[in-house]
Amino acid sequence: MSEEVFDPGTSRGILISFEGAEGCGKSTQISRIARLYQQSDEEVIVTREPGGTEVGEEIRHLLKHSELGRSLFSESELLLFAAARAQLVREVILPALESGKTILSDRFLDSTTVYQGVARQLSEDPVRMINDFAAGSLVPDLTVVLDVPPEVSYKRVRMRSSDVPDRMEEESIEFYKSVREGYLVLAQEVPDRFVVFDGTQAEDVIESQIWEEICKRFAYAD
Amino acid sequence: MSEEVFDPGTSRGILISFEGAEGCGKSTQISRIARLYQQSDEEVIVTREPGGTEVGEEIRHLLKHSELGRSLFSESELLLFAAARAQLVREVILPALESGKTILSDRFLDSTTVYQGVARQLSEDPVRMINDFAAGSLVPDLTVVLDVPPEVSYKRVRMRSSDVPDRMEEESIEFYKSVREGYLVLAQEVPDRFVVFDGTQAEDVIESQIWEEICKRFAYAD
Repeated sequence: MSEEVFDPGTSRGILISFEGAEGCGKSTQISRIARLYQQSDEEVIVTREPGGTEVGEEIRHLLKHSELGRSLFSESELLLFAAARAQLVREVILPALESGKTILSDRFLDSTTVYQGVARQLSEDPVRMINDFAAGSLVPDLTVVLDVPPEVSYKRVRMRSSDVPDRMEEESIEFYKSVREGYLVLAQEVPDRFVVFDGTQAEDVIESQIWEEICKRFAYAD
Repeated sequence: MSEEVFDPGTSRGILISFEGAEGCGKSTQISRIARLYQQSDEEVIVTREPGGTEVGEEIRHLLKHSELGRSLFSESELLLFAAARAQLVREVILPALESGKTILSDRFLDSTTVYQGVARQLSEDPVRMINDFAAGSLVPDLTVVLDVPPEVSYKRVRMRSSDVPDRMEEESIEFYKSVREGYLVLAQEVPDRFVVFDGTQAEDVIESQIWEEICKRFAYAD
């Protein structure tokens, strides 16, 4: 099995990733956009990272919802995210792309760059290399960034209820600030792929803006 | 947290890894050598890969004993092994080395090189880079290879009983042959660190040979 699994020349589908800090409204917008796809009779698959496969959901549980996740070193955390992604790409995303479907992914490789690289301060080179290895050089066709101020992330995360608080719920406002800035820097560096939306607007407004961008880029009827 | 966690200058302990194909007798020899250490009043810690930490044992279960492990792509498998190792190094091995202890590890980074690189045919560069990242540049002081013919591995693995057969139990003789050759090539490339023992000899004989090597290298009273 080769690492370079993605050949854009043979792919007919579209991969759209949704990114942003905790509490930015990704999940809500993904559901709304998926509904618009379905109403347009376009085949769409919704997935998430970490997760999206059976193995990936086990890894997600380990990372986010078990007591064990709290004992993880940054390096182990990065490698677990990468393992979940490697599986998701090969088991779900590539076959879907090859059969012409659209995939909406709640987080993809930019999350690793931002969270493990910027916010946890691992060096950039190994993070990029591990990202490439895991994703088999696959890059989203469009990355939607929902931008919210760190205070909004902080407040929304604390409003969630869960039995075992996940690691994100213990982060400081400074952490969310680094995450936000990490995304804005990436968006500036790769303006063709990233589009930043103001996540503090009404859900309806954000939905229309994202859908308009999708229709414009991928030539769907609006 | 930096990736370069290991500074040989400040370490006082000794890391000895035990390697070889399935069924080569590693576990038996580790128990025997650990007993000799204890009889010599030397502090010794026994660990294993994947595993050795709570997170690592969860990953081990995923890799080796669950139905899910069978759905893993080679890349996901490599990254899961690396995640378990990253945790083991930082949580167990480095603190033990820093406090002057000896660690006997049932497998360490050479297992990844051989199994994922040689036997599963992933390219060498990313495997090495991910290995270095996970192990924080830590390399064993001595690597004991127990060398057995592929037919012996094949037969011994099939004699084990387990409810869910692990992936190794489904490999062919050709696979064990690649693994054996992988270790012998590594041992030739790094003769200072590797010592190969004939794993078909009587357990007592192998134990004496390994202990003699350890005493000679690390200046224990024999």
